[in-house]
Order: sequence, then C-alpha cells, then structure tokens
Amino acid sequence: MDNHTHRLCVNLSDKPGLLARFSNLIAENGGDISSAHHHVEGGRLYLRFVFTSKGNRDELRRVFLNAAQDTTADARIHLADPELPARVVVLCSREGHCLYDLLARHLAQDFRFTIPCVISNHETHRRVVESHGIPFYYVPSDDKVIAMREIRRLFKEHQGDWMVLARYMQVLDAETCNAFAGKIINIHHAFLPSFPGARPYHQAHARGVKLVGATCHFVTTDLDDGAIIEQDIIRVDHGDSPESMMQRGRDIEVSVLARGLRGVVEDRVFVAGKRTVVFR
Amino acid sequence: MDNHTHRLCVNLSDKPGLLARFSNLIAENGGDISSAHHHVEGGRLYLRFVFTSKGNRDELRRVFLNAAQDTTADARIHLADPELPARVVVLCSREGHCLYDLLARHLAQDFRFTIPCVISNHETHRRVVESHGIPFYYVPSDDKVIAMREIRRLFKEHQGDWMVLARYMQVLDAETCNAFAGKIINIHHAFLPSFPGARPYHQAHARGVKLVGATCHFVTTDLDDGAIIEQDIIRVDHGDSPESMMQRGRDIEVSVLARGLRGVVEDRVFVAGKRTVVFR
Amino acid sequence: MDNHTHRLCVNLSDKPGLLARFSNLIAENGGDISSAHHHVEGGRLYLRFVFTSKGNRDELRRVFLNAAQDTTADARIHLADPELPARVVVLCSREGHCLYDLLARHLAQDFRFTIPCVISNHETHRRVVESHGIPFYYVPSDDKVIAMREIRRLFKEHQGDWMVLARYMQVLDAETCNAFAGKIINIHHAFLPSFPGARPYHQAHARGVKLVGATCHFVTTDLDDGAIIEQDIIRVDHGDSPESMMQRGRDIEVSVLARGLRGVVEDRVFVAGKRTVVFR
Amino acid sequence: MDNHTHRLCVNLSDKPGLLARFSNLIAENGGDISSAHHHVEGGRLYLRFVFTSKGNRDELRRVFLNAAQDTTADARIHLADPELPARVVVLCSREGHCLYDLLARHLAQDFRFTIPCVISNHETHRRVVESHGIPFYYVPSDDKVIAMREIRRLFKEHQGDWMVLARYMQVLDAETCNAFAGKIINIHHAFLPSFPGARPYHQAHARGVKLVGATCHFVTTDLDDGAIIEQDIIRVDHGDSPESMMQRGRDIEVSVLARGLRGVVEDRVFVAGKRTVVFR
Repeated sequence: MDNHTHRLCVNLSDKPGLLARFSNLIAENGGDISSAHHHVEGGRLYLRFVFTSKGNRDELRRVFLNAAQDTTADARIHLADPELPARVVVLCSREGHCLYDLLARHLAQDFRFTIPCVISNHETHRRVVESHGIPFYYVPSDDKVIAMREIRRLFKEHQGDWMVLARYMQVLDAETCNAFAGKIINIHHAFLPSFPGARPYHQAHARGVKLVGATCHFVTTDLDDGAIIEQDIIRVDHGDSPESMMQRGRDIEVSVLARGLRGVVEDRVFVAGKRTVVFR
Repeated sequence: MDNHTHRLCVNLSDKPGLLARFSNLIAENGGDISSAHHHVEGGRLYLRFVFTSKGNRDELRRVFLNAAQDTTADARIHLADPELPARVVVLCSREGHCLYDLLARHLAQDFRFTIPCVISNHETHRRVVESHGIPFYYVPSDDKVIAMREIRRLFKEHQGDWMVLARYMQVLDAETCNAFAGKIINIHHAFLPSFPGARPYHQAHARGVKLVGATCHFVTTDLDDGAIIEQDIIRVDHGDSPESMMQRGRDIEVSVLARGLRGVVEDRVFVAGKRTVVFR
Repeated sequence: MDNHTHRLCVNLSDKPGLLARFSNLIAENGGDISSAHHHVEGGRLYLRFVFTSKGNRDELRRVFLNAAQDTTADARIHLADPELPARVVVLCSREGHCLYDLLARHLAQDFRFTIPCVISNHETHRRVVESHGIPFYYVPSDDKVIAMREIRRLFKEHQGDWMVLARYMQVLDAETCNAFAGKIINIHHAFLPSFPGARPYHQAHARGVKLVGATCHFVTTDLDDGAIIEQDIIRVDHGDSPESMMQRGRDIEVSVLARGLRGVVEDRVFVAGKRTVVFR
Repeated sequence: MDNHTHRLCVNLSDKPGLLARFSNLIAENGGDISSAHHHVEGGRLYLRFVFTSKGNRDELRRVFLNAAQDTTADARIHLADPELPARVVVLCSREGHCLYDLLARHLAQDFRFTIPCVISNHETHRRVVESHGIPFYYVPSDDKVIAMREIRRLFKEHQGDWMVLARYMQVLDAETCNAFAGKIINIHHAFLPSFPGARPYHQAHARGVKLVGATCHFVTTDLDDGAIIEQDIIRVDHGDSPESMMQRGRDIEVSVLARGLRGVVEDRVFVAGKRTVVFR
C-alpha cells in the first residue's frame, strides 16, 4: 500500500494526556508526523497534525473518532486529504479586485483550491471568469428572497466547501448564514471592530486615522461581527481622499482575503466563540 | 550677519497664488529654501518651509504676518527657530516604558527637545528620572482638583511647550484640557477608534483581533476622541493573552508616541478639525 | 476656455528663488495649485506641481521651458495632462500573478493607465489577456537577438510610454535597455541589494532571513542594480520552505510593482543617480 | 508536593513516533501540557513543551535524557524552570538606546530576565545604569586582548547565561566568540545580508533603498554572519539622510533586539546551521 498524507484536526475538552493519546494513535497506525500544532484555550484543546501513513483514511478516521468519543461528548474530529482541492464558490458584485486575485491564485495553484463557479449580482465580470473556464451565474439581487434561494441552490449543486464573499455588496439573509454556518467568509474593507457597515473608507477619512485596514471574518447573522480570521493594515496620510484610501486599500483586501481563505481551506482555522485559533 | 535657519508654518484660507506669495517673500528676504510642504484641504492651505536667511527673525515674522493678514482674517503664521529645543513636560503613572524611552531619546538628542520636568502620581520612577538630572514632581491624584491645579502650575512654571501623557492613567479635567488646548498629546494603547477607554488589550483579546495598535492623539475634553497624530499596529495571534498583548503593545506605544511627539515639536503637525495634516 | 489640469515636473540645478519663480509663473498664467512637492538633493532641485488653469498646454510648456533655460543648461521640464492614460506595455513569462494584477487594476481604473499589448515568451496567458480585449504577442526567447528586436518593434508600434517586466524571466540586452533607458521597470522578488540574480527565495531560505522582500526598480544594463522605486517585505519563519516563501512573496511582488508603476505613470518618480525621489 | 512549571526543549534526529514518545513521558510523569511546539527540518526534530507537574525537576531531567539517549547519540535535552530569570550581561558603547530599552524592560519585568551587570568601553552610561541598582564596569578597548579577557572574566563571575551586544561597537575576538558560542547575541543595524560591517545606514542611503532594517543574530567568528534570530524594517524615503535613517532605525534596533532576546531567554530559539527555529 502506498503512503498517503493525512491532516488531522481535533477540537475537544482539554485534560492531561491528550497530546500523548493522539500522537500515540498516529504512531501506532504507522504515521510519521511532519507538522503538529497545539493550543489550549477556554478549557478546550485544539490540535492539528499532518502525517504520512499507509493506513486507509476511513479506518484511521474511525480510530481517531473512537479515541475522541472516549474522552468527551463534544469532540470534533476532522481527517482530511491535504491533496484534495477545496471547492470555493465565489460571490462578487461590481468591484473585481478580490475575484481576479482569486482567479489568478487558482491558476497559479497558489494553494489547493478550485472554483466550481462564480456568482454575481452584476454581469460585469462574466467574460473574464469564463475565459478561465469557470461557470458564471448572474443572480440579480432585486428580489432578495429569490436571490438567496438561488445562491443556496448553486452552492449545493456545485458541492461548495466554502462560500467566499469577495466584495459581494449584499447582506446574506439569516437562512443562508445559518444553512452554511462556519463555511462563509467575508472580506470587510476596514480594520474591525472600527468602521463596520457601509462606506468604511469614508468613515476612516472623517475620523482622520493614519492606517486603514481589511478584515477577513466568518459570516454570521450579525453584520461584520463574526469571528476574525485575518487582518492587515496599510498606511495612509492627510493627502489621501476616501477614494485614494479605497484604491490603496484594495491591495490589503486582496491579500487579507487570500490569507484567510488559505487558512480555512488548509484547516488551519478553528472557531472558538468570537475568537479564532489560526495555526500558521 | 550670520545665516540662520528658520521654520515657517502657514495655515490660512486657500486662494490662487499663495504658494507664490510666500515663497516670493522668502526669496525677497534672502531666504534659501531647503524644504517645502504644501497641502490643501477643506478650503484651507497648509504650508511649511525650512529656509536659511541672514534676516532677523522678528522682522521676518512681521513680513509674513502682514502678508497673511492681507489675505485673510483667520491666517495663522508661526516662524520658529528649528535649533531651539521644545520644552516637553512628561506626565506618567506606574508604567515606565514611554517615560524611559523619552529619557533615552532626550539623552541621545534623537530630536530637538528638552524635558524640564517629569510629573507623576506615583513615586516609582523618581530615582531614574533624577539620575538623568531632571526634576521629578510627585503629584498624588487623590484630590483631583488639587492635582490638576498643581499640574497646570508646574507646566507654566517650567515654561512647557508641550505636555505629554506618557501612560498617565488619569483623565485630565476640562480646565486643564482647555488651558493648553492643542498642546497636550496622549498615547492610547489601542488602534482608535477601536477600543477607547479602559483596558483596551482586554477588549481586543475578547474581540479576537489579529492586530493590536497604539494611537498618539491630541487631548480634548472628549476622552480618546481628539485628532489623531500617529498610529501603528503589531500582529498578535491566538496564543496571546491580554497580558502578552500588553507586553508586545508596549513597543508600539513607545514608537508611536515618539514619532507623534517628534512631529509636533518639529511643527510638522497641523490640526484640521478631527483630522491632522502631518508633513513628513 | 475651459479649465484644465496640468502636471508640471521640474528637475534642475538648485539655487535660491526657484520655488518662487515656478510658483509665480503658475500664478501669472492663472494657475491654481492643488498639490506641490519640493526636494533638494545633491545640488539639484526636484519640483512637482498639479494645478488647474485655462492656459493652453503648449504655450504653458514654452513658458516653463524658457524659465528653466534661463536658469541652467541641464534643466528638465515635463508638463503633462494627468487625465491622459499612460501606455504600459507588459512583458511576462509563465508566472501570471503580476500580469493578472495589472489586468485587474486596468479594468478597475485603479490609476490612469492603459495596456496597449502584452508580450510573453510563453503562450500560457493568451486566453485571459485576450478576454480583456488586449492584444497578446508571443515572442519566443530561443533566438535572443530576434526576440529583443521584436520587443523593441512592438513597444514602438504600440507607442509605449513604459515597459514593465512583470516577472519576465529573460534579461534584456543592452540595446533594449539603452533604447528605453528610464522607461523600463522590473519587479525583482527579493529585497535588493540582498539576493540579486536567480532563485532569490532559495538564497533567502538558505541564509535563514526572517523577512522576504520585493523590489521595483528601473532596468539598466547592470542586472538588478538600477535605481530602486519601491520595496516591501513580508514575514516568514522557520516553517517556510523556499516554495512557501515564493507563494507568500507573490503578494508583495504584486503590490510593490503596482505601487512602483503608479508612481512612474503619475510622474512622482525622479531618478537621481542610484537613488530615486518619490513624491507621495 | 507542589505543582511546578517546566519547560522541555528537545533537539534530535527525527524518526517516527518521537512526539508520541516525549508527550507520553510527560503524561506518565503527571505532566499537563499547556503549550507544545514541533518542527522537523534537515532530518532533525525540534520540540518545545511547557507543562506543569508535581515531579522533581532533576528526576524528570533524567527521564527525558534516558529517552533521548535511547534514540540518538546527538540528542540535546534541556529542562528549565520558566520562573527562573535568565542572567543577561549587557555590553554597550556610546549609543544608549538599546541599553536603556533593556533597563526599562528589566524594570517592567517585560519578560523573565535580570541584568547582573553592564559592561562598556565608555563611561557615558554609568550614572543611569547605577540608578537602576545594576553594577557598571568600564572596560576600555585600547588593549583588545586585555579587554576581551576582562569581559570573559566578568561574564563568568556574574554567571551570565546570555551576553548581549547592545550596540557594542567592538568586534569580539575568536576566543570570546568560541568560549560562549551560542550564548552571544548582537543587534546589527541593517537588514542582513544587506549592508554588513560598518556604517550600514550610509550604505543604505547610497544604494537608495526604501526600507532600512535591523537584525538580531548569534555572534560567531564571521562578522555579521551568524544565524539570524529576528529582523524588522522601517520605511524611509528620499527625504531621509543617513542621519535621519539612523534616528528612525533606532526604534527597530530596540524592538528587534528585545524580541530576539526574549526568544532566547524563553528557550524559543534553536540553531539549525545558518538558520534558526523560533517557536512563537
């Protein structure tokens, strides 16, 4: 049997001996660990291992699940194939910088993901998306209920693992947020919790801040209030108008979203209430 | 007569020809410009020149004032000697990192300033301050009215140009804020407008932000709401507790305060409502 | 006659009174200055003005040229229309991240430029480039002499103002470098002067640096030694392989190139020997 | 018996099962792990655990040593008390910014270290050092052989764990470098490998770089070529002279040295040839 690479994520109530327990199980099943991360917070233990083993993934999964269930009722175990590309459904509106960046990363295989489709409430980017050989769906947002239903349908039809709001300028309804809770990530063009909501660069300009930021976060029913995955900032000065802040800000929106997305598709991100654990 | 260096700051209602007007006046008075900054915003013009000239400073000042008064009733003109060290009165409490950094910069003559005295509501740092040959005043904050009066008295007695709250953990009263409006700067240990008020690192930890910041701003009667002079951030992650954020954050508190202070003592900072113009 | 915006760049031997001289000329010709930059270095004065005026651009140009020629034999004057998009010919090879970023910025009109054509020694990116409605030329690099000649021909035919090496993996020959001296900019994937030449991320990994960088610079006949326009860095750690550094590094290659290019097309960049003046 | 905190560092040839082995040993000895780091590189495994246990530190040390010796001849095991402050001997010359920063951190107990003495080839900082209650030794550098011998003697006499060159402007001789190999760290005021040796800010100015840096590294007999622990940069522009770069650069020298020192005293730094593993 061939050697395979496996990625194991564990999230359970902490007690002494758990790192030993899981690393033992890996060793006993012929696993050779190439990377291990460990974090304890709020009474919970977060573990992430990458290891190679000849073992069958389904059998291994059973082994780890049993071990976890012995320990605690609320253990969450995830054993994945790091070679399998995550399926990332991208939503966007008129502004294309985040979309185009994801298309370029997809082409460059910057990290393991594929884009099964792009959904937009504008036709603007159809031609470029299709030139990448990716289906493009125009879902107008005039009737919100219909639009949300169609987005959920497309996401399921294309077997999306993650939904990315790449400057999608519509607020998702509660049904969509809840249907894919923990699977939807957004890029907000401000350094949250400063300047949530609309026109953050105008807010930033009026307040006279010297740095503007971008925040990649999970989407919940509370607007711009989900757990933060990644943030970054860029320096501005008195010479910047809201428009030039917007322009400069695009660069960090793009890179913050990409780093956040890379984290989630590589199972580096664990949600812990309003906080995230992000193993580098 | 010897050549002297002069620094001219102008802040007046904008109209065509004003840059020509002031640079002409400098040229006509034998001035040679080594640096010039220009900014227009909200109908006002901000100019800063550094030039050398044999002219007498008081006469030059009259020339520029007359020119400005011809133009607009609300012109503000400031002609300074860049060699003259600004007198910076430092207030602090128990935490000494910002104070010690300022003492070290003063010793190194990092930029042109002197510290006529240090005022604190704790005796903690007396010995180190006095080892620098700088008077140290203990002003307990039990009786706020008395404390504030004493601070105002000491600031005047020591002919302070600027009052720096270097992690001074007391809110100044309105009388003090107003008496020295535009002359008091504070370092707040958060990236304002996020996390104003008390325990910002605890707030930042609870919200799960990935960057923590520091803000140097003018003090007004609205707490942590004055015009921002300088800001910076430092990256934190899930492994950081509020305590370790505090520890990491000290580095940027120190450098943000120092950069902000340098800006004001070198007349690089103009207040424009809630915003500042900061000529680099 | 309508008001027009003009951008004036001046680069000449410094002597007292020149800022007055040029700002006077602008005022005398009905100009209203919205932005002015001034820098003196190595005996030369660098000025950049943006102003509106009803004056005819060709007449204005004559006025400034005459003023400059009165002053010094080696004055350089440039009066441009800020509304006119610069023509940026992009060269690339297999890696597409910088190209795709420029295409996205072009579409978003991030700053005023147009891409008259893309030239590559690989067919890889033809489809995407053409989906943007931009001509794509495949110029194989097997015969270097022929390739270089063809590149020069295409640049002229498309009336290029700037040639951008957007990860073009061929060294330009001396004839091309000299033919368009001061008009060719490159993005090097290292923080020059560290790690010039080939495989900089491998060099960086071997040396164990904690930051990797990117440098946008003018191309001269000395490889990676032209004047630097813009640089930035990104943090790496022991967990990064040369491959993951490469991946992380793409983000700053993209943004450093874009900032550098924006600077040159907006006439913010003056070359002063091995150094550049970059007015923000 | 009371619970104690222990810090275990392991560095040995990698083979499958070692993480399990060591985490088992901790569990079997009643240990509860609060933090664990793991890195594999170049055939070697680097582990760092912090755990609490009632076990006696000497007995625990024997347990881990035996386990390691079973595995490989060249294993290195280090079990430390995280509460015990590291003894950091500081060397400096005329420039005091790094020294003063360390004194302030020491006072603030920023991280667990103590300064048993300061050694300098100038008397400049005696008064301030002594005001902190720390012995100050003046060791003139006129006779290098004598100076180096005295430095070695003082370091041993004061039972130094680490020797920090806090802008000490003398090159240590080979005997000193070798006597305390892996225990001496330096702050170099450039982003190595750019600008090693003397006057790096002047080199940086002449080359026209847009960022200047600082590097904290281990001292070896090859000047500025030891393994890098930490680096950072600060933005400069055409307006900066070598002197103002120096001024701005001090801020990052200070913070880079502090972060590097914190890493080594907390046993987060492992040397792997020319590279370091730095567990955050």
